[in-house]
Amino acid sequence: MILTVTLNLALDVTYDVPALTPHTTHRIGAVRHRAGGKGVNVARVLHTLGHETVATGLCGGPTGAQIERELTASSVPYDFTPIGGDTRRVVTVTDADATIFSEPGPAVSAAEWAEFQARFTTLAAHAGVVVLSGSLPRELPGDAYAVLTWLAHRAGAKVLLDSGGPALRAGSAARPDLIKPNAAELTESGLDPRALPLVVSRGPDGMLASTPEGCWEALPPEILRGNPTGAGDAAAAALALALRDGTPWPSALADAVALSASAVVTPVAGDVDLATYYRLKQHVTVREVPCPW
Amino acid sequence: MILTVTLNLALDVTYDVPALTPHTTHRIGAVRHRAGGKGVNVARVLHTLGHETVATGLCGGPTGAQIERELTASSVPYDFTPIGGDTRRVVTVTDADATIFSEPGPAVSAAEWAEFQARFTTLAAHAGVVVLSGSLPRELPGDAYAVLTWLAHRAGAKVLLDSGGPALRAGSAARPDLIKPNAAELTESGLDPRALPLVVSRGPDGMLASTPEGCWEALPPEILRGNPTGAGDAAAAALALALRDGTPWPSALADAVALSASAVVTPVAGDVDLATYYRLKQHVTVREVPCPW
Repeated sequence: MILTVTLNLALDVTYDVPALTPHTTHRIGAVRHRAGGKGVNVARVLHTLGHETVATGLCGGPTGAQIERELTASSVPYDFTPIGGDTRRVVTVTDADATIFSEPGPAVSAAEWAEFQARFTTLAAHAGVVVLSGSLPRELPGDAYAVLTWLAHRAGAKVLLDSGGPALRAGSAARPDLIKPNAAELTESGLDPRALPLVVSRGPDGMLASTPEGCWEALPPEILRGNPTGAGDAAAAALALALRDGTPWPSALADAVALSASAVVTPVAGDVDLATYYRLKQHVTVREVPCPW
Repeated sequence: MILTVTLNLALDVTYDVPALTPHTTHRIGAVRHRAGGKGVNVARVLHTLGHETVATGLCGGPTGAQIERELTASSVPYDFTPIGGDTRRVVTVTDADATIFSEPGPAVSAAEWAEFQARFTTLAAHAGVVVLSGSLPRELPGDAYAVLTWLAHRAGAKVLLDSGGPALRAGSAARPDLIKPNAAELTESGLDPRALPLVVSRGPDGMLASTPEGCWEALPPEILRGNPTGAGDAAAAALALALRDGTPWPSALADAVALSASAVVTPVAGDVDLATYYRLKQHVTVREVPCPW
């Protein structure tokens, strides 16, 4: 089982409008609600591919209840730790492109964080791989991902860390098995890229794996247009599967590029187009390159 | 007691941003939630002025529960008919001005509408005045306000109708005691302005009362800058009080102009600035004019 962790869970709310015009009133025809947050997207992709997965995280209030109802309806397994605060919403207004309003997360108490760690330890004992995704709620200790990496390793699970900024830097200290920053996040983090296995996403320029065994670069066979939100989460799903199965790096990288591209052609984060995935998978170009550092 | 009716209740959600920039991500610092809808604003103004009032309407789901919690915290009395659907949200993004995203209302069944009418009849028997405010949910009969006007009159209450479009036109057929359209709504409605007592709001140009006893025009002593949302609801509150007390038209009109202006200087619909109200009230100019029709 692959356990995905979303500490900053969100209900994704989408308003479709013909055109977003500031300082006017927009009457919304239909509102779409969906459980969101990067780890939830990873679990959804794994579930779509038919793999065993559980989404965990912190979830509370009426918005949290709505998230649980949606995941139940989508058959995505979850096991959240309840919190007293109300889970946040992220409102996306879509016309030709997306305009996003991201609410701050709810307060998380020290007792709730302790309870989460206890439940996480139990879940991680049944997981081959743990995926730690996204930003941290403000109240959590800055090294929350290091703590979870340490607990997961002790429970016998491998760890993929997909975050940025201080959360990535602090989490990396516990030596997750793989980190997946984008190029900007890697630079900002100040991490030494030679110290850890990592896969860097570079948007339409594909991905670079930098590992103790060497460096590889993978390029999609074609540039797909669409919605890049969720492409990184699809790549994380592919890399989690590769960690679970001990897939060699070149093959893991090809899979991540193909699954990521198959997310770009769908309008909603967490969805992948399986036909695109199976088609591209055969044609991704992977080549060994000199490590750039 | 003044009973206010909000059939299209909403939770008003406000996101403050430095500047709304389409096609970018906005991280919201703090989210404000407030019970909204025109009738709720009227009840809030009446409550602020110290008058007995009850807000009624159709309310359901987790968003409805949040509205009830907020009204309880604000001490605004309410008695809503529960519905199976989830009450809608209206998201306002504010920078220099307001950009509004108005969700559609929930479905309302025929049984829920029948239950509302029964509860409304009981409430109206204890009310001196009933205020019918705002748009109608799509599923309700187009003559819903005519039905409620008839029920209120039978229960011995006077009726103020503050709506626009087909809801105003159909509702007027039951001869409410006063209608309060703005100038555009009156023209659109195709109503004969000589057939009913009415007060027409004309923004900064003040208000016009057109009644069987004559026509009067009232102008604020100064033009106040601020947020005009909610100014019409404050005027409705003043006019409901005048209906209750049998206040002569010139004095009722002066009060409506002053209370309306005192809503403009506050940032949130449903709030009035009492100091501004008491100051302006003494200085509103009212004069009898030839009726313009």
